[in-house]
Amino acid sequence: MKFIAEINVMPLKALLDPQGKAVTHSMHSIGYKSVENVRIGKHISLEIEADNEGHAKEKVDEACKKILSNPVMESYEFEIRPMN
Amino acid sequence: MKFIAEINVMPLKALLDPQGKAVTHSMHSIGYKSVENVRIGKHISLEIEADNEGHAKEKVDEACKKILSNPVMESYEFEIRPMN
Repeated sequence: MKFIAEINVMPLKALLDPQGKAVTHSMHSIGYKSVENVRIGKHISLEIEADNEGHAKEKVDEACKKILSNPVMESYEFEIRPMN
Repeated sequence: MKFIAEINVMPLKALLDPQGKAVTHSMHSIGYKSVENVRIGKHISLEIEADNEGHAKEKVDEACKKILSNPVMESYEFEIRPMN
C-alpha cells in the first residue's frame, strides 16, 4: 500500500530563529506590521510503500529521527494519508 | 484578534527538486528503499493580528504572493486558526 507523509521540521522554540526574525523585520518594512513571530523550517513530502498505516508511521518516524531532522536543534511532526 | 498561519511553500511539481532527489537517494542508501518522490520546501508559521479570519486569510495570501514565495518556482498553501 502507498502512503503520503507530510512532515514539518521546525527549529526548537527555545532556539533563536535568525531566519524567522529576518523575515519578520522585512514583512514589517513592507507594511505587514500586524505579523509577529515568523518561524521558518522545512516542509517535506514523500511517498512510502508499507503494509499498513501503522507500519508507514513507524518508518517515517524513524526516518525523521535518523535523517530528516536534527534532534539537537529541530522538532518534527507529520501526517500520513493513503495515496489514492 | 490573533491568528496563527501555517504555510507550506513547495517547489512547483513541474520543476526538478534536486534537494528532494538527493534526500531520496540518501534514504535509499541507509535502507529506506520504500521511500519515493521526496520533495522539500519551506514550512512557515507566523502570528497575525486581524479583525476576523477572512481578513487574516487575505493578508497571509497577499504576503505569500509578495514575499514568502516565488511564484515562478514555488506554490504555496496555508491554514489559519485562531490563537487560543
